[in-house]
Amino acid sequence: MGPHPAVAAIRLAVRRVLHDVLNENSAPHTAPHDAPRATTPLVLVACSGGADSMALASALAFEAPKLGVRAGGVTVDHGLQPGSDLRAADVVARLAALRLDPVESAAVRVGRDGGPEAAARDARYAALDAAADRHGAAAILLGHTRDDQAETVLLGLARGSGIRSLSGMAATSGVGGRYRRPFLQLDRQTARTACMAQSLPVWDDPHNADPAYTRSRLRHEGLPALEKALGKGVVEALARTAQLSRDDADALDTWAAQAEAAVRDPAGLLECAKLYALPPAVRRRVLRRAAIEAGAPAGSLFARHIEEVDRLITGWRGQGEINLPGRVVAQRQGGRLVIRQG
Amino acid sequence: MGPHPAVAAIRLAVRRVLHDVLNENSAPHTAPHDAPRATTPLVLVACSGGADSMALASALAFEAPKLGVRAGGVTVDHGLQPGSDLRAADVVARLAALRLDPVESAAVRVGRDGGPEAAARDARYAALDAAADRHGAAAILLGHTRDDQAETVLLGLARGSGIRSLSGMAATSGVGGRYRRPFLQLDRQTARTACMAQSLPVWDDPHNADPAYTRSRLRHEGLPALEKALGKGVVEALARTAQLSRDDADALDTWAAQAEAAVRDPAGLLECAKLYALPPAVRRRVLRRAAIEAGAPAGSLFARHIEEVDRLITGWRGQGEINLPGRVVAQRQGGRLVIRQG
Repeated sequence: MGPHPAVAAIRLAVRRVLHDVLNENSAPHTAPHDAPRATTPLVLVACSGGADSMALASALAFEAPKLGVRAGGVTVDHGLQPGSDLRAADVVARLAALRLDPVESAAVRVGRDGGPEAAARDARYAALDAAADRHGAAAILLGHTRDDQAETVLLGLARGSGIRSLSGMAATSGVGGRYRRPFLQLDRQTARTACMAQSLPVWDDPHNADPAYTRSRLRHEGLPALEKALGKGVVEALARTAQLSRDDADALDTWAAQAEAAVRDPAGLLECAKLYALPPAVRRRVLRRAAIEAGAPAGSLFARHIEEVDRLITGWRGQGEINLPGRVVAQRQGGRLVIRQG
Repeated sequence: MGPHPAVAAIRLAVRRVLHDVLNENSAPHTAPHDAPRATTPLVLVACSGGADSMALASALAFEAPKLGVRAGGVTVDHGLQPGSDLRAADVVARLAALRLDPVESAAVRVGRDGGPEAAARDARYAALDAAADRHGAAAILLGHTRDDQAETVLLGLARGSGIRSLSGMAATSGVGGRYRRPFLQLDRQTARTACMAQSLPVWDDPHNADPAYTRSRLRHEGLPALEKALGKGVVEALARTAQLSRDDADALDTWAAQAEAAVRDPAGLLECAKLYALPPAVRRRVLRRAAIEAGAPAGSLFARHIEEVDRLITGWRGQGEINLPGRVVAQRQGGRLVIRQG
């Protein structure tokens, strides 16, 4: 008798990602003449002790040895609740019980920048990056599921800032593509079921049910109401939207990069007539690129800023300078658009 | 004392659209030598008797004479409830009381194709088209608000079929751009308030509150829950997403049309190597175009079909023919992709 279908599903998802990691690490330029590698690659799992990442840890522990990969685990102690250090120690013990090695707990201090969720995330990724560097890990697996992806798309939708913010989390991200999300096409219930089928103890993060957090409200109220109105396929549709939007946004960014080079005159100034001839979606991306190159911080540059600059091209009636974040100024001068730091 | 702010808002929205219609109708080629036009243009409002379209009718009645435009109205009797003919007659009387002329009721038979909402919509637009043709109307105004747009984006999101389905309703649509939606940036509450401020009687369509309809469930349950989770700006964010997605989808369609021509060999066959070099978002659009040109019905061609054809390019391992809707077959033959009706 084979494993429970849920267990088979999580293992398959991890196996595929490990294959990708191995293929990339055994690329010809890193292993000339088919020489055996000095060290076997190490893959870490980031584990909170919740069902998603415990399922991920168990699948990594099962699949890695079969592929000649070392498997380790890291848990991050955010220090946000009393006793979080004990909890982290407990997760470390559970990871060790799965025979992961090395396993460690990384304590972080969560700042305040960008709100509680963003600050916790920044601290967590910094700790994971440090752990990966310290151990020379080839990859870090993250337990985000299709349900997390759907929530991320809705959070992006609420910003209303275009298709890049609808594209959710990438299957591969971070410096050198070190972060991998094997469960991005898998639903949360499969991960939970896999834990139960393997009798793995899991811990529910109280933040996940705390209505003070936007994502928690979305998970427990917003998405269920949307599913009730639109039908059961909403999570899948949102995840598919993420993938399609990501590809679309990538293609348009490529186009904008090429277009930006083509609309600059020999002195490097943007020619208004050539900008005018671009499709609006491409022109706005070119203007955004130019503003960022001139020193505007990407995070403070909103659609309304770009729209105002765009009107220098599409609705020219002698407007004056337009002030952008980062003391950047956009101005139309004799058929050229000048964007520079003031 | 000026009009109530809500009344001022609906009038401004209509005035802008009437200016656009007039500018387009007075283009040089239609009025050589600045000759006076033989007839003043007629603009119709499509009116259900509900708050949105009654507000629209009132604003049209107010603004049209000032711009030398004739204003008329049409109400469609869908015949779906007993007494709908009496209701239509009542709406005609209300439109006439606003001094619209001509005003008429158009009775339609609603079929069943595509479900009750789609069938009613098809019948309604056919009747409006016929009315516009009969009266030689330059435009037909529709009362869709920003809230309707937000609902349409969520309905598109539920399909998960990409950014075109996120782009909602266009401000201008139909043959020759005859349909205009002046209220697409205005919220529903403004239209309601404008009706109250003008003491206009309005009629609430029972379908709008009927939970058997997806849109109604979305309006009364889905969107409020989403707003509760994500904050009050959700409707605005969704409407902005519609506009950005529409521009992005248009730009990518333009790119795909150019790319399709560039990847065909002299015999008109698609070259696999050139397809492979395209960004995925563009390649999938080229494949979709090619399938439709070969006879596949656009409405039956889903993302999974295109993905399967795409794997002939990106994951070639000697696959056989791929069957698409409309008896269209895709096949890789010696470095070429052949898509034809079987």
